[in-house]
Amino acid sequence: MFEAAELGRKLSKEDFAAAAPALRAEMLNLQIKLREANFPVIVVFAGVDGAGKNESVNLLNEWLDPRWVVTRAYDKPSDEERERPEYWRYWRDLPPKGRFGLFLSSWYHTPLIGKAFGKIDQAQMDKELEHIIRFEQTLADDGALIVKFWMHLSKKAQRSRLRKLEKDPATKWRVGPDDWTHWKQYDKFVQAAEHTIMRTSKGHAPWNIVEGEDARYRSMVVLTTIRDAVNRHLEARAAQKETLAIEKEIRAKKPAQAKKTVLSKLPTILSSLDMTVKLDPKEAGVVLQEQRGRLSQLHRKIKDNGLTVLAVFEGSDAAGKGGAIRRLTSALFARDTQVVPFAAPSSEERAQHYLWRFWRYLSRAGKVTVFDRSWYGRVLVERVEGFCTDDEWRRSYDEINDFEEQLVAHGIVLVKFWLHITKDEQLRRFKDREDIDYKRWKLTEEDWRNREKWDEYEQAVNEMVERTSTLTAPWTMVEANDKAYARVKVIATVCDALEAAVKKHSK
Amino acid sequence: MFEAAELGRKLSKEDFAAAAPALRAEMLNLQIKLREANFPVIVVFAGVDGAGKNESVNLLNEWLDPRWVVTRAYDKPSDEERERPEYWRYWRDLPPKGRFGLFLSSWYHTPLIGKAFGKIDQAQMDKELEHIIRFEQTLADDGALIVKFWMHLSKKAQRSRLRKLEKDPATKWRVGPDDWTHWKQYDKFVQAAEHTIMRTSKGHAPWNIVEGEDARYRSMVVLTTIRDAVNRHLEARAAQKETLAIEKEIRAKKPAQAKKTVLSKLPTILSSLDMTVKLDPKEAGVVLQEQRGRLSQLHRKIKDNGLTVLAVFEGSDAAGKGGAIRRLTSALFARDTQVVPFAAPSSEERAQHYLWRFWRYLSRAGKVTVFDRSWYGRVLVERVEGFCTDDEWRRSYDEINDFEEQLVAHGIVLVKFWLHITKDEQLRRFKDREDIDYKRWKLTEEDWRNREKWDEYEQAVNEMVERTSTLTAPWTMVEANDKAYARVKVIATVCDALEAAVKKHSK
Repeated sequence: MFEAAELGRKLSKEDFAAAAPALRAEMLNLQIKLREANFPVIVVFAGVDGAGKNESVNLLNEWLDPRWVVTRAYDKPSDEERERPEYWRYWRDLPPKGRFGLFLSSWYHTPLIGKAFGKIDQAQMDKELEHIIRFEQTLADDGALIVKFWMHLSKKAQRSRLRKLEKDPATKWRVGPDDWTHWKQYDKFVQAAEHTIMRTSKGHAPWNIVEGEDARYRSMVVLTTIRDAVNRHLEARAAQKETLAIEKEIRAKKPAQAKKTVLSKLPTILSSLDMTVKLDPKEAGVVLQEQRGRLSQLHRKIKDNGLTVLAVFEGSDAAGKGGAIRRLTSALFARDTQVVPFAAPSSEERAQHYLWRFWRYLSRAGKVTVFDRSWYGRVLVERVEGFCTDDEWRRSYDEINDFEEQLVAHGIVLVKFWLHITKDEQLRRFKDREDIDYKRWKLTEEDWRNREKWDEYEQAVNEMVERTSTLTAPWTMVEANDKAYARVKVIATVCDALEAAVKKHSK
Repeated sequence: MFEAAELGRKLSKEDFAAAAPALRAEMLNLQIKLREANFPVIVVFAGVDGAGKNESVNLLNEWLDPRWVVTRAYDKPSDEERERPEYWRYWRDLPPKGRFGLFLSSWYHTPLIGKAFGKIDQAQMDKELEHIIRFEQTLADDGALIVKFWMHLSKKAQRSRLRKLEKDPATKWRVGPDDWTHWKQYDKFVQAAEHTIMRTSKGHAPWNIVEGEDARYRSMVVLTTIRDAVNRHLEARAAQKETLAIEKEIRAKKPAQAKKTVLSKLPTILSSLDMTVKLDPKEAGVVLQEQRGRLSQLHRKIKDNGLTVLAVFEGSDAAGKGGAIRRLTSALFARDTQVVPFAAPSSEERAQHYLWRFWRYLSRAGKVTVFDRSWYGRVLVERVEGFCTDDEWRRSYDEINDFEEQLVAHGIVLVKFWLHITKDEQLRRFKDREDIDYKRWKLTEEDWRNREKWDEYEQAVNEMVERTSTLTAPWTMVEANDKAYARVKVIATVCDALEAAVKKHSK
């Protein structure tokens, strides 16, 4: 795999100088074209020490307009980072559409170094590579261009380099005992590298192996590879646009309403809910207070144990999400609790993968966070209103399950609520809102429009629960025609989850 | 994940009968449309015992025109199957374009049952699921429609079913002690199932969870799901066709020749070969005989150890592949040796994934097989001549590495040769062929046409070796200007590989 990167290729000073000005102009023009494009460029550098990873990044920063370039390198995770799932820091740093992101010692660092130095075994390495594959697939599916460089030096070349550095008094300090230890592990490192490259080189995220010995040669390869990849991707995305337009046309010809079939009248998850459940008004207050007391006590334990809680609320319009959330949070310590409402994404958020804004708001350890609406918008409103393509919402079930698995694997206590009301009850509440002055602001034209698509939303909710209610992250369906009942069920469910988590944690 | 499949949904006899005729006609029409399409439909059934896997397959065979349907179920591997890599049997059975393939107890069987019954651990299961993901991805990338059904029964429903069968003297025999043992493992089975479904449910190969208790209900779900998926895929493929047409247009506008850049004149893998090497004509015969003797002896050992050998030959036109192959095989026992030449694929082969024809010719254990040309056609002739799209040949490096890894993991001794001659030497040989009567048939118009694309072929070969010469399956570059030298190098390399394999095997 590395034969071609050990040919001793060099580029003369004259040849480089002759080609440089035109290429430099091309790179800047490319960046201007990219600024208009609807995808980011993610460039990953990995490889052998001394093969020019840092130098290549420096060069790119010099040749490109650095205002539209993000450069990131990762060290040991900070406190902030350790308190979130492992990939939080990579998600946080992703470049928005139209920009370059240059990554040094990226997500590849841990599996590669871990395996090469015998800290993890093959199975663990493969698990981590699996994670990488899913991560890159998710980004590529969303249109990101991913270009990966493996900067290579032969064992001999690496030794010469270290010796040369040692000889010169001016650079001697750059070689420590670690460098020679690493050099002795060369063969193991290269073996781990080949396995990594084979596993993670995909059509949408290929590795480019670059001979790193000669600075001019490797610079020219890195620059022209990026140039060609961006140009190809610009073309491919333009062609895809046509496909989407054709798809849209086909969809426009179809009836908006889902066809009623013989299966439509059978029970569904939603239709199986007993929507008549209610609490006796006399009892309701007492039970609610009880549960709120229970929650307060549990919150102290949660904090003491450094546990993180994420409660996600989705529901029909006017189902009482806001009220339920208020009853929940007012029983918690405000300084450790945060409610994050999600409406239409900001322009900054629109320039990223749709999951980005939810990664963004993951809290530090010991906190309770409530998401008022969430990533499920992708398979609800975005699906029904056609804000994303069929392919996009269909594959997002997997992306969501994968995301939630990462949350839970990190130890986050995740609870998900769907608050449901009947169509009649919704109408009653809408009318109430029209009639009562201080409630009127809550009702918009959009609510009425959504109501017209009631059946489509129901279908989307049923499918959402079917596909994303897992042992890892189950949905709790809340029958919310009776507000008191719904509020008690929400708080009691949160309490149960916290109790289980505390019990598990103190084991 | 299985909540929606435990709602107790039933379809009445009347409703089913009312919907059936129209649906039946739809299915047949669909099949007619599919026959013209350029993709196969792969339907996988898995799930809980008694949830209707077999019945669904029977129904599909009844409702569809069975001439265009392949049905497969897998038991313990046969001798024939055990002597090939694990997935050989699945590749062999893939339906061609335009047809349905129905798979029972498919590639999911081993990881699922293995994990549920504690025969394999989580790491092993994940490794096997990883294999499945790559397999399905490869097929889907090639356009296959993959529909997967998980037929579900609740624990309670499964118990009722077994009890009911036991009660009736006519069906009592169908319940064995195994069935109750399985039932007791229900929870573990479902846990393994959820993990499997989450890991392997992809946008291009989603799982559909079906409540299996009521036969009419589950039949209707299975049939309509397949109908809708095929219709959607027909539409999507039609839209993709437009994209490809646009891509082709863009490519047509580009100059056919790769642009010469400042990097073009630097050494490459091919240009670094010392093309002047030759054997002294006096020595050559002796050395060749020596190596052939060595090979004969090794072949006996190979046979005794049940080892399988696959030698792959690629090379420039007129580089002497045929001659080298003849010198090699004539030193082997003919009954255990087979040469398979690959030219343009047959119509049957064209209706399958491009790797299918190579899977097909993998031999049983103890044999030596020589492939005269191979799967590398994808990144050589198909790339250069534009027989496949850019995306197709780019992603095939991974597919090829993955394929070869499976061969080597199975214990096959794989050697790959590139026979190289210089452009001048080729011209000399072409002219020779024109001049000598009994050689004239070897030279075609196509050879001259290929020669015009010499530079493009060189670029393709260099990239091929860069991307597919791995520790697992390295390329051997053969300097073939001197025929004697090339023949000796080929045979000696095969001998070295066999020696190493025998040594490893007898350890």
